Amino acid sequence: MSFSAFLPPRRILMGPGPSDVPPRILEALGRPTIGHLDPRFVDLMDEIKVLLQYAMQTENPLTMPISAPGSAGMEACFVNLVEPGDKVIICQNGVFGGRMQENVERCGGAAVVIQDPWGNAVDPQKLEDTLKAHPDTKVVAFVHAETSTGASSDAKTLVELARRHGCLSIVDAVTSLAGSPLKVDEWEIDAIYSGTQKCLSCVPGISPVSFSERAQQRISNRKHKVQSWFLDMNLIMGYWGQGARRAYHHTAPVNAMYALHEALLIVHEEGLENAWERHQRNHLALKAGLEAMGIRFIVDSAHRLPQLNAVAIPEGVDDADVRRRLLGEHHLEIGAGLGDLAGKVWRIGLMGHSSRIENINHCLQALETVLADVGAPINPGVALSAAQKILAA
Amino acid sequence: MSFSAFLPPRRILMGPGPSDVPPRILEALGRPTIGHLDPRFVDLMDEIKVLLQYAMQTENPLTMPISAPGSAGMEACFVNLVEPGDKVIICQNGVFGGRMQENVERCGGAAVVIQDPWGNAVDPQKLEDTLKAHPDTKVVAFVHAETSTGASSDAKTLVELARRHGCLSIVDAVTSLAGSPLKVDEWEIDAIYSGTQKCLSCVPGISPVSFSERAQQRISNRKHKVQSWFLDMNLIMGYWGQGARRAYHHTAPVNAMYALHEALLIVHEEGLENAWERHQRNHLALKAGLEAMGIRFIVDSAHRLPQLNAVAIPEGVDDADVRRRLLGEHHLEIGAGLGDLAGKVWRIGLMGHSSRIENINHCLQALETVLADVGAPINPGVALSAAQKILAA
Repeated sequence: MSFSAFLPPRRILMGPGPSDVPPRILEALGRPTIGHLDPRFVDLMDEIKVLLQYAMQTENPLTMPISAPGSAGMEACFVNLVEPGDKVIICQNGVFGGRMQENVERCGGAAVVIQDPWGNAVDPQKLEDTLKAHPDTKVVAFVHAETSTGASSDAKTLVELARRHGCLSIVDAVTSLAGSPLKVDEWEIDAIYSGTQKCLSCVPGISPVSFSERAQQRISNRKHKVQSWFLDMNLIMGYWGQGARRAYHHTAPVNAMYALHEALLIVHEEGLENAWERHQRNHLALKAGLEAMGIRFIVDSAHRLPQLNAVAIPEGVDDADVRRRLLGEHHLEIGAGLGDLAGKVWRIGLMGHSSRIENINHCLQALETVLADVGAPINPGVALSAAQKILAA
Repeated sequence: MSFSAFLPPRRILMGPGPSDVPPRILEALGRPTIGHLDPRFVDLMDEIKVLLQYAMQTENPLTMPISAPGSAGMEACFVNLVEPGDKVIICQNGVFGGRMQENVERCGGAAVVIQDPWGNAVDPQKLEDTLKAHPDTKVVAFVHAETSTGASSDAKTLVELARRHGCLSIVDAVTSLAGSPLKVDEWEIDAIYSGTQKCLSCVPGISPVSFSERAQQRISNRKHKVQSWFLDMNLIMGYWGQGARRAYHHTAPVNAMYALHEALLIVHEEGLENAWERHQRNHLALKAGLEAMGIRFIVDSAHRLPQLNAVAIPEGVDDADVRRRLLGEHHLEIGAGLGDLAGKVWRIGLMGHSSRIENINHCLQALETVLADVGAPINPGVALSAAQKILAA
């Protein structure tokens, strides 16, 4: 068998992540590796913490990147905060709520799952009713921005309900961080995890997390050891902790940290509020174009994520065929539906560096070309100017 | 607060990992990100599997990189193969055996720990005696190449003992893979994990693993769900499995996979046997130089790892001060002692791309300069020629 270097094909990433990674970040990623205990690397870790605190709008000292993808960040929150027998309410409105339930059960916790239709926001009333029916609940968990449906939930209200009923909150912010408003301290979120490959536009593989002082106390006072050695925050704190001598825990993914630092620098330079605003403006432009073409959003406008646009696949159109042609003929990746929405929706990401005018224009043009070619019932020749009108306003 | 791009300092990495990463791998790492479900990425995954099978000398279909560091690879082996109540014998002769015990206990298993002195190989006789005393043992685990001491154990014999007593074997090959002989199929190892940042000379953050058919059956027939969702091989198989349609599990660290592919290509180009031989030859050269200088190895010659040279810190020498000067004045990183060996030994890595003549010469020269300057009892002016003599032979 013969092998050769892998040269990635040209792609424009407008799926549910990874998003387009800016050259600055790729360049940082490829800088020479140094040791994970090098004093200069320790300085970098400190700076990453400060920049992450800014991106998450928190002063939590326990804010750091987990050395593994968002799924591990989710698991880090659950294995540290849930003990065997603990009751956890999960508000599910898409794929990732289901994964939360798996996590709770694998920790020996008892999951009480509240269902909302996929594409809807989490209903705060249902949460309040469930909290009243289960006064022994320890933790409430939900997804802020459901990557599988494009729906945004009211994190502030849900966290407040949890707190009022004496529960800690775990919030999935994988797709929201840096793309839409997220205020960890102001909203008093107890545990939050995210991913690098969405609105931070960094390479995939790392999961930023943050824990409030209340959460940190819960972790320190656990009766049972955390079931994961790799994700035990009591141990990870020893390596990522401020001030004190760093204790070796695992070998940090050094180059991924270079990239994350550069990604966080970019967020800092643009300013969080400006980034949120850009995501919103570009979403409205894409939306205008798609709707002019005759394509319908599946989430109602009040709960639509600007960074993840879930739209119904037009009647009679072959999902996989269109995505294959977009990729093959237009270098464009958009996302398929997941779970219940497989074959019914496309997920068009406008995350981080992918949220740019060029991408919107290209996506509208490519979609229109392929859909017209397969005979889909769309209005041709109006999408781009509809989008342009929004951006010019 | 103001921030700027992180430009890593110049370093020569001769510690216990990460090792020097060749420019080819850094260049591959920084190539444009594509989607983790892109058909071209799926092809890359297939090629990585084949190249990993070569590097591990196995035809196990369940051979793949875990998307997290070696510690997570270790945890993947334990959480998948150990069920609550299972008895596991751990042969400990350094730091990482202790971590194995933590893993077993956090899985609800019962760990029986056999101790050998740090710096010694694992004693097969002790394992045999313990297997006889504990006939209900399900798994035997040990470290092939102890990164904390530089000692190599006889994996073939230990695995054979385990098998003869009806146990599965878990082998830590973090430091051995591609640096010294390792033959997964010939030795009939059941579960093995490694790291990318040692003798593969890839960036840190990924852990290659492989499971035998027997291990795979054990995983498929578990009575309890694997406690980690992220590391559940039943789920990971769905994404990394051959042939069948790939099911989304987590977002793969795409760019790290580019780098791993390139690192495995380099191993394939050089040839495994040649790589083993190079590590051995360069070790002998470094050893000749160090011993000529008057520095003593802590592991007896029969069990010395060529890729990790643990030496006694000369009498009266300040460990941290010397390492700080090597780093600051000579750009050279060597490793400190861990655990019981902290302050007593240095660990000098000759792993992968770091195992080069230039590095040996630089290390000997830098050590001699600093040690002479702090008044250590060494023989000056003889180390480099002693090393050269070996290489010229």
